[in-house]
Amino acid sequence: MKHILMIGAGKSATAAISYFLSHAKTNKWQLTLADYDTKVAALKLQNSPYGIAKSIDVTNAASRRKLIAKADLVVSMMPPAFHLPIIKDCIALKKDFINASYATPEIKALAAEAKKAGIRILCEMGLDPGIDHLSAMKTIHELQTKGAKITAFRSYCGGLVAPISDNNPWHYKFSWNPRNVILAGQGTAQYREGGLTRYIPYNRLFTQTAPIQIEGYAPMEAYANRDSLSYIALYGLTDAATFLRGTLRVEGFCKAWDALVQIGLTDDSYTISNSATLTYKEWVKSYFNSGAVQANPHMPIINVIAGYLAGSKKKHEIIPMLESIGLFSDEVIGLNNATPAQILQQLLEKAWQMQAHDKDMIVMQHQFEYSYRKKNYRLNSTLVLEGEDQVHTAMAKTVGLPLAIGARLLLQRKIKEKGVLLPLTSEIYTPVLSELEKYGIHFKEKITPQA
Amino acid sequence: MKHILMIGAGKSATAAISYFLSHAKTNKWQLTLADYDTKVAALKLQNSPYGIAKSIDVTNAASRRKLIAKADLVVSMMPPAFHLPIIKDCIALKKDFINASYATPEIKALAAEAKKAGIRILCEMGLDPGIDHLSAMKTIHELQTKGAKITAFRSYCGGLVAPISDNNPWHYKFSWNPRNVILAGQGTAQYREGGLTRYIPYNRLFTQTAPIQIEGYAPMEAYANRDSLSYIALYGLTDAATFLRGTLRVEGFCKAWDALVQIGLTDDSYTISNSATLTYKEWVKSYFNSGAVQANPHMPIINVIAGYLAGSKKKHEIIPMLESIGLFSDEVIGLNNATPAQILQQLLEKAWQMQAHDKDMIVMQHQFEYSYRKKNYRLNSTLVLEGEDQVHTAMAKTVGLPLAIGARLLLQRKIKEKGVLLPLTSEIYTPVLSELEKYGIHFKEKITPQA
Repeated sequence: MKHILMIGAGKSATAAISYFLSHAKTNKWQLTLADYDTKVAALKLQNSPYGIAKSIDVTNAASRRKLIAKADLVVSMMPPAFHLPIIKDCIALKKDFINASYATPEIKALAAEAKKAGIRILCEMGLDPGIDHLSAMKTIHELQTKGAKITAFRSYCGGLVAPISDNNPWHYKFSWNPRNVILAGQGTAQYREGGLTRYIPYNRLFTQTAPIQIEGYAPMEAYANRDSLSYIALYGLTDAATFLRGTLRVEGFCKAWDALVQIGLTDDSYTISNSATLTYKEWVKSYFNSGAVQANPHMPIINVIAGYLAGSKKKHEIIPMLESIGLFSDEVIGLNNATPAQILQQLLEKAWQMQAHDKDMIVMQHQFEYSYRKKNYRLNSTLVLEGEDQVHTAMAKTVGLPLAIGARLLLQRKIKEKGVLLPLTSEIYTPVLSELEKYGIHFKEKITPQA
Repeated sequence: MKHILMIGAGKSATAAISYFLSHAKTNKWQLTLADYDTKVAALKLQNSPYGIAKSIDVTNAASRRKLIAKADLVVSMMPPAFHLPIIKDCIALKKDFINASYATPEIKALAAEAKKAGIRILCEMGLDPGIDHLSAMKTIHELQTKGAKITAFRSYCGGLVAPISDNNPWHYKFSWNPRNVILAGQGTAQYREGGLTRYIPYNRLFTQTAPIQIEGYAPMEAYANRDSLSYIALYGLTDAATFLRGTLRVEGFCKAWDALVQIGLTDDSYTISNSATLTYKEWVKSYFNSGAVQANPHMPIINVIAGYLAGSKKKHEIIPMLESIGLFSDEVIGLNNATPAQILQQLLEKAWQMQAHDKDMIVMQHQFEYSYRKKNYRLNSTLVLEGEDQVHTAMAKTVGLPLAIGARLLLQRKIKEKGVLLPLTSEIYTPVLSELEKYGIHFKEKITPQA
């Protein structure tokens, strides 16, 4: 009997829980599902004889360690900030650990300790990060093994709404943590292009997009992720002139999102003191003054913004998009001392909420440029996966399944390496990608000879 | 005999040192001038019998306290970050303190302790903050005393170059800490206009300027300071619909500065890893890629930026301004792991350095709107002061003299209030403004009846 402790039973945990329960009998697994709210955990277990719901306060060391001590493997579905103390407990108690979040510098610093404890801390085993690594590394190793020289690598991923459920002018609904969408890109994006490190500051990020066409789907666009550079060496592509990781949206999204950024509505660094009583319209108005737009102070805010966007190419499309999310509404915000980002999130959670039968969609594409036997090629490797409904989303599947399969590999002692691990080696990506295919998660490759 | 301990003998300390030495005999003062480098301090004292140069390490508590213990008054000319420990020593050793920097929340939190110790911590006694408070409060109290109702207050200040020494297209040279100029405005400016709190994010700050015309000078423009709100109550203007503090530049500066901001060159939050070997031109190039400007990758960077600025109204003026500071130069940066802001500072310190006979200029203007006996008025109160040369600058005078005169008031026990003080009361502004007039620092008022 092997004991799996899964911490966090939120929306994104569903697919992993199903995997554990449906494979429990054969593998002799017992799942302890721990959440702050035992009821939430119990609901997700649906009376399975292989699952037990427990309550946990992850900020309380005793509460954590009591459960971790009894486990053979710890699976964390908690938000990023909570992983570090759990990992430290796992090292102290010599338990393997897996999550779907980035291995932060603080986590990476524990590598030697984890190795010494003889355990595996396997991070970045979700979708992005996760499936992106698995699938990119497979192709990179294949190309390198046959002697091809990779000159450019670009990788894009987006959690979108499926065309059938796409009924708003942004072509976007939330299938994941809304806060991450609001704060996306803050800082400076760094990547490599044409052999040079490149920088795109936040204030230009959503205007410097690349067009991406996925066969059979509406035109898309990609903006650069904040950190591409740290993956160049990990992917073994230090000789590639171009290395970029980006995020996909349906064409038109970024131009309108940029308007929100430029006005100042995505800022999370200060609070609006009277946000409890202001209306959304008054809030937006407070980002403009009469001097700024050379207009009279009684001009409706929608006209003020139209004037502000006058230089923008897609002004006539942006205004109705801003209107569609309720930005000019007379409704009272009703949040106390909220940051602009928090106010915007409240507005967007209403506008972009998935309805019960809405389907989401995951799109991932790696674009390789390489030379092989003196000829140049372009290889596109593409994954498109649509979800079933609001609960069985493509997002939950693509995050939860690699995590669960990775957990299986750890429980079956299939991963020999110890320490803090990323899924970059064949030992991990071969069995995981192979099993993901059974769930309909597979990449299509297209190779085009270049001039 | 009264002992003045002055900490920091930098460029901006000159005028205050002169004041102390020339008034030493009459007032029976002894000045101890302490700097990290005793030689710098000794040079500034010019063999005066009333001055002693000492070495101090302000980060070393013992080094600080040894000197503070012997003083009757501590005058700090250190950069803002160093004031707090000095102030704490002053409270422990029961010594009066004065500086020309902002009273931070940490300093304000010491008010009760300072009061209990029976001492005065007098902050914001320079130019801005300093003379702005003194002169604004005098007019505010005069208007309120005669029964006028102030509806709008706008206050602008700029450290500029005098017209006779103005020979670059930015119409700007450094008369003060260059780093503060590079980082100016980062964050979100907050002020009040038309009864509403207004916000201007950094990415729009230098485009939302107000035109300011000072009689006899080239047209100027003002951008909003980061924090106007916290002065509304301190100035007793909670009923005013408009309250704004801003910074002055000669017209045209802000549009070109905005280009530097938009490109990303003022950022201080990350380092350019290869800045030691990159040229300035390559550095700027790294903020653009071929995709971003829809141009071929071999296009000269000056053309790329012209393309990027295509939507901007003053493009033909901005490009030569950027060229004038060396932004497209083939010179190697030569700084190790520098932030964009540090690289830009190095470039601007060469381009905007004051030469030996260059004169700087201080401009300050308060604009009041008020009603009095059922009529509306506008009152402009304006200070213009030109410096003598690179050493005897208007900046050093306007920062150092209020500080020195404030020190005199403290030494002569003319300030009765105890605790952490700002120069907002008649007890302080009346004698200081009166003595500043003798040094040519005085405001001209102009009242215009309004419709």
